[in-house]
Amino acid sequence: MPTLTVDLGPRSYDILIGSNLLGQAGEMIKSITPGRKILLVSNPTVYGLYGEICTQSLAKSGLEVACALMPDGEEYKNMQEVLGIVDEAVKGRVERSSLIMALGGGVVGDLAGFVAAIYQRGIDFVQIPTTLLAQVDSSVGGKVAVNHLQGKNLLGAFHQPRLVIIDSGVLKTLNRRDYLSAMGEIIKYGLIYDESFFTFLEAEVSNIMQQEENCLQKIIYRSCEIKSEIVAEDETEQGKRAILNLGHTFGHAVEKLGDYKIYRHGEAVAIGMATAAHLSVILGLMSSRDLRRVKNLLASFSLNIRFPDFDTDDVISVMQRDKKVKDNKMNFVLPCGIGNCVITDNITEKEIKTAIKEARK
Amino acid sequence: MPTLTVDLGPRSYDILIGSNLLGQAGEMIKSITPGRKILLVSNPTVYGLYGEICTQSLAKSGLEVACALMPDGEEYKNMQEVLGIVDEAVKGRVERSSLIMALGGGVVGDLAGFVAAIYQRGIDFVQIPTTLLAQVDSSVGGKVAVNHLQGKNLLGAFHQPRLVIIDSGVLKTLNRRDYLSAMGEIIKYGLIYDESFFTFLEAEVSNIMQQEENCLQKIIYRSCEIKSEIVAEDETEQGKRAILNLGHTFGHAVEKLGDYKIYRHGEAVAIGMATAAHLSVILGLMSSRDLRRVKNLLASFSLNIRFPDFDTDDVISVMQRDKKVKDNKMNFVLPCGIGNCVITDNITEKEIKTAIKEARK
Repeated sequence: MPTLTVDLGPRSYDILIGSNLLGQAGEMIKSITPGRKILLVSNPTVYGLYGEICTQSLAKSGLEVACALMPDGEEYKNMQEVLGIVDEAVKGRVERSSLIMALGGGVVGDLAGFVAAIYQRGIDFVQIPTTLLAQVDSSVGGKVAVNHLQGKNLLGAFHQPRLVIIDSGVLKTLNRRDYLSAMGEIIKYGLIYDESFFTFLEAEVSNIMQQEENCLQKIIYRSCEIKSEIVAEDETEQGKRAILNLGHTFGHAVEKLGDYKIYRHGEAVAIGMATAAHLSVILGLMSSRDLRRVKNLLASFSLNIRFPDFDTDDVISVMQRDKKVKDNKMNFVLPCGIGNCVITDNITEKEIKTAIKEARK
Repeated sequence: MPTLTVDLGPRSYDILIGSNLLGQAGEMIKSITPGRKILLVSNPTVYGLYGEICTQSLAKSGLEVACALMPDGEEYKNMQEVLGIVDEAVKGRVERSSLIMALGGGVVGDLAGFVAAIYQRGIDFVQIPTTLLAQVDSSVGGKVAVNHLQGKNLLGAFHQPRLVIIDSGVLKTLNRRDYLSAMGEIIKYGLIYDESFFTFLEAEVSNIMQQEENCLQKIIYRSCEIKSEIVAEDETEQGKRAILNLGHTFGHAVEKLGDYKIYRHGEAVAIGMATAAHLSVILGLMSSRDLRRVKNLLASFSLNIRFPDFDTDDVISVMQRDKKVKDNKMNFVLPCGIGNCVITDNITEKEIKTAIKEARK
């Protein structure tokens, strides 16, 4: 089975990628946990589809399972739900040596991971991402968090999973919109890091649209590999890891102004990435031809990349409250051609406004 | 100025011990923070006494200060107050490069440290403990946490401070009961680790009762040194660090059954330590003579060490829900004579009950 290792010294872990892995979750987890108790965190939708196969596999390996479900949706990624999961953990007698298993998309993974980070000052957890977006992005790298009224992911931790199990088969039950929105983050890996991966994606549009599983596994593997390499260099985002945020400064503003309801995260990142590419063209960091390639590839996955008509001053005001602001200066990750990028805080408000204007055309 | 270094590789930090250090807090903090913004977390009592001297010192060093106060008391060490401090942090535009300064006792330090651990996935913090208990214990070692209905310190992190500033002068305004209750933890260091320190404390009872500052600084220094050595060996309590919990399994049960109102933490630890010593005598780990020394030293600081008349089954039931339980087995740290101890989970309920009974005589 294709296996990647995220190299973080004592916190290193494997990412397993394949088909029909859920039925083997028990033995995989048994081999890495010192305890016997597993707290399975999920939402009713995912649990209805895959809860039973997982709990059966865990039980077969002699593990004791308690379950805690949270409602489905980004709006539930908050401290109140954290406390709800903690209550279930206490009821289920979850101990320091127990393990939390996150079964679901990014919301479940981020929240369950955060519970694991703070419960009894931190216990082990395993990610079993069930959306394409979570498989290529949030399940790898140890960033866990919940939202707060004043900011997305405002409260969180760097808490690495002990194992990531990616079953590409579960994508068959993923709705089309969630599936396609993940392509924003996948294209981002090509754009910031690897032109040949970008070219591969251009060539595979039709296979990706048809959810051809072999092609999908390759894409998931390479996406996780790129993310792992970047995370291994800079686990807690002191520097280089920030390149993973390309498209996210604009994207988070779009998400927030849409009240986290209008846009999926990947859709907002796609808009943000296109806008960042426009900004790069304005600054002379990218050719118009490369900008067109980026926009074309995003559009070929039915991603709407026109910047929405929110008031531009509101957009900028939201961006200024972003976590990535330092000494009141906004940080931007901007593509330099395809396969390369730069981090800069040397951007004027006028340039930002022009980029937004261009991205609305 | 006496300076200790807690040796934790990239997370190493200094503990500065002396008189009248608060007025120099600005320059000390300026030298370790990359940002300009400080969020001072305190409670109204401590802030009323020492807030101004600190904020003036910070301002003089060119640092920008925002303040967040929480009510005074263990019952406020909870997630609701965490979210209140987070609101103030957002209002004060606290960023990733900003620093949280905890000015107060253990409650303030634990809560402010936990906010620092999770705000934007972790920012720097400095401990300025203003109680003797916090100076010798909670401000050193990076254990931060808040309570939850179902357990003390149930939610937390290991998040090391960047600096600890201990001003022994502030103890002049500490009330007598809080001052004396800290002696429980201080005696614990001698009991678990250093017989000569234990003997020193026996010889210095009168100076300690008179709060002689020179003697106090020596005691604080050695207590922090012992704790630092243990923490440096085992930062995240995988093994040896647990010896710091001597007296805490019984102690936490006493605290909890008193609803965190009847007993100060140090008082409960004193009771727990005496009970643990009784258990050691029962198991043949300690002589009756050493038990008497422990009880005499605790009593010479007016600490009431008789085990309270809570229902014994209730005591055991609370102990079983303690964080230190592993695979349903209770872990005990027990003194082996004076200056040495052992960790064991091989204790019967009958032995526990006998120890409690002896400790009630």
